[in-house]
Amino acid sequence: LKLSLNYIFPKIQKMIHAEIVTIGDEILYGQIIDTNSSWIGSALSNIGIKVLRRASVGDEASEILDILAQAGKRAHLVIVTGGLGPTKDDITKHCFAQFFGSELALNSQALELVTEFFRKRGRTLTTINEQQAWLPACCTYIPNHFGTAPGMWFEQDGTVYVSLPGVPSEMKGIMTEQILPKLQGKFDLPVIHHKIIKTIGIGESYLAEIIADWETALPPHIKLAYLPSLAEVKLRLTCHGNNKQLLENEADKQIFLLKKIIPQYIYGYDNDELMHVIATQLLQQKLSVSTAESCTGGYLSHLFTALAGSSQYFEGGLVSYSNAIKEQILGVNASTLAQYGAVSEQTIAEMAQNIRLKLKTDIGLATSGIAGPSGGSEAKPVGTVWIALAHANGVFTKKLQLGGSRVQNIQLSATILLNLLRKYLIKQDLS
Amino acid sequence: LKLSLNYIFPKIQKMIHAEIVTIGDEILYGQIIDTNSSWIGSALSNIGIKVLRRASVGDEASEILDILAQAGKRAHLVIVTGGLGPTKDDITKHCFAQFFGSELALNSQALELVTEFFRKRGRTLTTINEQQAWLPACCTYIPNHFGTAPGMWFEQDGTVYVSLPGVPSEMKGIMTEQILPKLQGKFDLPVIHHKIIKTIGIGESYLAEIIADWETALPPHIKLAYLPSLAEVKLRLTCHGNNKQLLENEADKQIFLLKKIIPQYIYGYDNDELMHVIATQLLQQKLSVSTAESCTGGYLSHLFTALAGSSQYFEGGLVSYSNAIKEQILGVNASTLAQYGAVSEQTIAEMAQNIRLKLKTDIGLATSGIAGPSGGSEAKPVGTVWIALAHANGVFTKKLQLGGSRVQNIQLSATILLNLLRKYLIKQDLS
Repeated sequence: LKLSLNYIFPKIQKMIHAEIVTIGDEILYGQIIDTNSSWIGSALSNIGIKVLRRASVGDEASEILDILAQAGKRAHLVIVTGGLGPTKDDITKHCFAQFFGSELALNSQALELVTEFFRKRGRTLTTINEQQAWLPACCTYIPNHFGTAPGMWFEQDGTVYVSLPGVPSEMKGIMTEQILPKLQGKFDLPVIHHKIIKTIGIGESYLAEIIADWETALPPHIKLAYLPSLAEVKLRLTCHGNNKQLLENEADKQIFLLKKIIPQYIYGYDNDELMHVIATQLLQQKLSVSTAESCTGGYLSHLFTALAGSSQYFEGGLVSYSNAIKEQILGVNASTLAQYGAVSEQTIAEMAQNIRLKLKTDIGLATSGIAGPSGGSEAKPVGTVWIALAHANGVFTKKLQLGGSRVQNIQLSATILLNLLRKYLIKQDLS
Repeated sequence: LKLSLNYIFPKIQKMIHAEIVTIGDEILYGQIIDTNSSWIGSALSNIGIKVLRRASVGDEASEILDILAQAGKRAHLVIVTGGLGPTKDDITKHCFAQFFGSELALNSQALELVTEFFRKRGRTLTTINEQQAWLPACCTYIPNHFGTAPGMWFEQDGTVYVSLPGVPSEMKGIMTEQILPKLQGKFDLPVIHHKIIKTIGIGESYLAEIIADWETALPPHIKLAYLPSLAEVKLRLTCHGNNKQLLENEADKQIFLLKKIIPQYIYGYDNDELMHVIATQLLQQKLSVSTAESCTGGYLSHLFTALAGSSQYFEGGLVSYSNAIKEQILGVNASTLAQYGAVSEQTIAEMAQNIRLKLKTDIGLATSGIAGPSGGSEAKPVGTVWIALAHANGVFTKKLQLGGSRVQNIQLSATILLNLLRKYLIKQDLS
């Protein structure tokens, strides 16, 4: 993975370098995880700006001034988050004023927006919140439509400094709405087109093997990265050039070729999520689903119901954790359980079929396995999981042999079963 | 929260300053979130070392050498993670060798350990993995019992440099097992005792109000921090002094006083988890549980079953997402659903009682509500949730009015119901 990163910035023109600075004692002391830096790093990379360094400093003026000076010397762009709240220990804008030899002044646009923010929520503006409209006189005011602390844009000696609130939702909102377009206008950035192909049901190394010829044949200005996570591998195409439309067409052409090689593994593109893809199919085909879970213990139905609108196709599920419930509520034959055990093809088939009939749905899904860390045997070691999908014309069963932690085995079982459902819905071969 | 952080390091002696450096292009480009820095920041704070700055640089020698020089000038301790893998782009140890004017040499202890690592897993050592045993000659070898890349310890001009692998489990293992004790031996650190009190069922500001007198009466060397998260507030006592045992006794005395004020909100200490506390009680009292979930959609049973050993007390659950299933499978009266609706005290009481009887458990838990973002009405807006706990002698019901996102409302409903179960198990007043 790491080797494949350097391609992102070929030397096609003068590269714009950025540094990211996050401010706050709570970051240094590990009381929060700094997710802002990652988000900004990814957003800048996506528009062709290279992040050279990231730093975090505490709520101390000397530290903030020092890092501003250093980062400004090295980079064309310095993005700073945090320290813009109304309390005493939030000192970022005072530091910026000092750094640029400027003074704080009441910004009327900022005052209007923050007043409006409070008015809409039926609250009156307090003195402490009014202070948020005082900004360094030398800054370009960047409105915050997601909270009360304004953003700021400074330029000095060819370097751009951007100051944003540390609340992730506010930072992301302002970046997306205003800063990224402004940066694309300000700098002569390379034209970059990213396209993500989402695959499931195949490991990274095997995937790399079967698409090796396709990858080798990619033109030099289109690069491929593998981004693996639990059960999924995202393939990211990064296309460099001068013409956005041309790059989009080229990426689509490559995807067309890729789809011929691995049609069964691709479930979506860019922001598509597996559950959204499934939901769309279920709604289109007017099909309903129910679940009978043993080892996944409710996680599968949680995945269904976490999506808004799921009540249109998800009827319900049974977590049949004990054998008694498998037998008495779900109606699995006592003889099946006695003869083959709960973790068996015979039991899982009955579970899927019975939940489908009991809850009167088109499709019944079931899981039964040994999530671990204990409970395994020589014949059925930890990680042995049976999954099944029952429909009007039969039931499909599959045995998994997983090797993760308890929670990973639960998540993997549920995700692999969801992929089975996806394949069933688009009439792919299930085996 | 932020204001309360500065106390952590009173000027009782010369403070040891640390900087944390993480290395890797994938961090800069936002392909992974840097959790190592937070973990190290927290671990150092806990032993009385103040983190002054954090930085991340890419896999470039000039960048790594520059940040080593800068951090070494400012801090007594520089902890570096990442770039120790066997592949070409992992250059950290070469940079350290260059930085200290040293050369790589084969370390026999390191070779022995990495050979053993592969032997235990039935694999033979490859040339590329053997290279991991080549270390800068000037370093103190730090064995890695959690992976193949050794840790390194350097000292120069009174500054300690520690190099650790970037894989979080390996970094944490080596830090806990070796680096933290070694730092406590090396530096004259203040004696600090931390104690965390875990509360649930009360918001941060109301909690602060009712324990204000207790907080004010804390001696100056014992400081309090509020660490709120969804549904919970952790209170952290940080005690400074010269004698560990004395500090532990003092903290215990303060907790004794606090327990008199808020006995009903404290569910545990330090690493206690709500579900562990509940599991312990259920096992001790030999009680079993079942769940009937509507709005939480399986999340509650997932919380139970995510814990190993839960099959000893968790029998199973029904996700009765549709009214048909509430009626036909769970046996809620059709007239109850028709007259009061699914989100009502009458329905939730029947759900909890019926699941308890149907699954033959001592306790039945139930949730029904409108998680959002749509589905609300004037009488029952989004966030209206009923929860219930049924037992042999009756049923307790409670209405919640939540204001979060869909997923937050699901998580909050489940957690508040778990807290109700906890209170029931320790025979506290449920209202």
